[in-house]
Amino acid sequence: MKQFNIQHTDKSLEPTIQQKIDHLNKPKGSLGRLEGLAMQICLIQETLSPSLNHPCHLLLGGDHGIEREGVSVSPREVTWQQMINFTRGGGGVNMFCRQHGFDLRIVDVGVDYDLTTFNGIIDRKIARGTRNFLYEPAMTTQQFDRAILTGCELVDECIAQGCQVLCIGEMGIANTSPSSIWMSIFGHIPLGECIGAGAGLDSPGVEHKRNVLVQALDHFNQTMPAADTETIIRYFGGFEMVTAIGAMLRGAERRLVVLVDGFIMTACAVAAIMLYPAAQDYMIFTHCGDESGHRRMLDIVGAKPLINLGLRLGEGTGALCAFPLIDSAVRMINEMNNFDTAHITKYF
Amino acid sequence: MKQFNIQHTDKSLEPTIQQKIDHLNKPKGSLGRLEGLAMQICLIQETLSPSLNHPCHLLLGGDHGIEREGVSVSPREVTWQQMINFTRGGGGVNMFCRQHGFDLRIVDVGVDYDLTTFNGIIDRKIARGTRNFLYEPAMTTQQFDRAILTGCELVDECIAQGCQVLCIGEMGIANTSPSSIWMSIFGHIPLGECIGAGAGLDSPGVEHKRNVLVQALDHFNQTMPAADTETIIRYFGGFEMVTAIGAMLRGAERRLVVLVDGFIMTACAVAAIMLYPAAQDYMIFTHCGDESGHRRMLDIVGAKPLINLGLRLGEGTGALCAFPLIDSAVRMINEMNNFDTAHITKYF
Repeated sequence: MKQFNIQHTDKSLEPTIQQKIDHLNKPKGSLGRLEGLAMQICLIQETLSPSLNHPCHLLLGGDHGIEREGVSVSPREVTWQQMINFTRGGGGVNMFCRQHGFDLRIVDVGVDYDLTTFNGIIDRKIARGTRNFLYEPAMTTQQFDRAILTGCELVDECIAQGCQVLCIGEMGIANTSPSSIWMSIFGHIPLGECIGAGAGLDSPGVEHKRNVLVQALDHFNQTMPAADTETIIRYFGGFEMVTAIGAMLRGAERRLVVLVDGFIMTACAVAAIMLYPAAQDYMIFTHCGDESGHRRMLDIVGAKPLINLGLRLGEGTGALCAFPLIDSAVRMINEMNNFDTAHITKYF
Repeated sequence: MKQFNIQHTDKSLEPTIQQKIDHLNKPKGSLGRLEGLAMQICLIQETLSPSLNHPCHLLLGGDHGIEREGVSVSPREVTWQQMINFTRGGGGVNMFCRQHGFDLRIVDVGVDYDLTTFNGIIDRKIARGTRNFLYEPAMTTQQFDRAILTGCELVDECIAQGCQVLCIGEMGIANTSPSSIWMSIFGHIPLGECIGAGAGLDSPGVEHKRNVLVQALDHFNQTMPAADTETIIRYFGGFEMVTAIGAMLRGAERRLVVLVDGFIMTACAVAAIMLYPAAQDYMIFTHCGDESGHRRMLDIVGAKPLINLGLRLGEGTGALCAFPLIDSAVRMINEMNNFDTAHITKYF
């Protein structure tokens, strides 16, 4: 795969940034997590006056071969139906992009339907869905490389418009399944503890999903012993997920603020961090949903999410909802008086 | 005190509202807490198409006699200094009001300083600080009544501008002290478990605060046996706190969405609910701060806060930061496609 040049942020700048934060007109530490966010964003941008210009949201759609095993409550046609719906402005992702001024880019990287006639869907289709990882790798090496590169290109196009903050969402029926497997492998967590109800499976449905995924993982372990990170990602991932990993890595390489959404995007973030640990410095983990095990997956990389509203819609909606808090952090360090200009006695 | 006519919201409307929410283009329940917020706001406004017009933020300032006992890390002059600072736009409350389009009203209801010459501060001063409740009631019955009425009038002025959502913040050095005592009395929680570090006391400071408050509560119990709720509020409360209670009750009476901020405003909300339980139907508990016991105080009224960012600045900043989530809930029910318009197969 493409190599990335991702540097850790320069921690030697921390004391200078902390000094500015501590000299703002407030008791020390009293803006809680906003202070940590401001620190991170200043480090990413290497400035004391950060900005969040032209926020972009990549909504990546793809279908999954594993859907054929009945692991999801909804069948695959919901993927293309929703992709079309997004072009009409009525999805969750549309509302929240409008609310927070995100440039929404709806991208077909692997939907099992011809979407080329629909205005508003960017066509980067790699294939009409992945293969079924119950029996074989979800994608070829060439497809994997192309997905990573597609993520890079999409990010570069955003940056060309002035983008400083990148949000990524997904639409892909059955994509909690590969997410659970990645979580199990990368987090060394028994697979059974990584599987939840997805968009609304009942108990027998979850049980069936568990059986299918256990079988898939067993088959993988037998046929691909000692697989490396890249192979693990390629074997189970969806095109929308691998594209997201490419976008996250490119975002980190180009020093964007990268917002990480719910269960599936957290799985992609963990995979990206496994490839390039320094990428985490650029990520803000925004939301902890209700999908069983999401918090444990966040624990794999020691991430503490900003909010927990129990969202499980996908599409990047959790990250979008959290964005104003990140904006608040940036406003804090830019707009809040310091003690000198405010003429407040500094006792605290 | 003034009597309020506060009705519970009409729960018979719930099935109709729930039907609209469940028919939106998303898996049932998948927008988590946003769905509950939408339900509450629809009930408050008795509509399926709610709105949040002209949000107003009342920033109420007052000083406390108990400050003389050294219970706070900052002395009382910080109250008036900050009130002036707020008129210059550089406080936490200013940033977040700008960010979210709140009409900010800075009101002096009891600051121990002449603020009449400062543009941008509404003068409703009741007295220059309360009395010291270590020895006597913080305010007279007349002052209490006036504070409640002031809260009502401020809300009526907001409504005259079209306000549908009310946020309240406070500036009052030492006001965690009366808040802790109310929490202890209304929640039947030992006082020691209700006391925290305020804006940044060290351990000996917290110990001193605890001793002072225990002494004050003992004295109150001896001199005012079997005091009613109103007397408890009057004996310990600050002018900004009692005005906030009046504003919350008037907000509920006039069917506003009332956003409840951190520790001090939660104490006021609990007090308001003790007076009029139905008022809680109109309140959204927005933020759980780090002040020791805040979550336990929320538990007194069974409230589950929206976010926890560890803010402890006061001024209503926690509620303001949470506002976009409430806006998201309203957008969901107004803007999201339903399954009929979206042409999505409804499997979930």
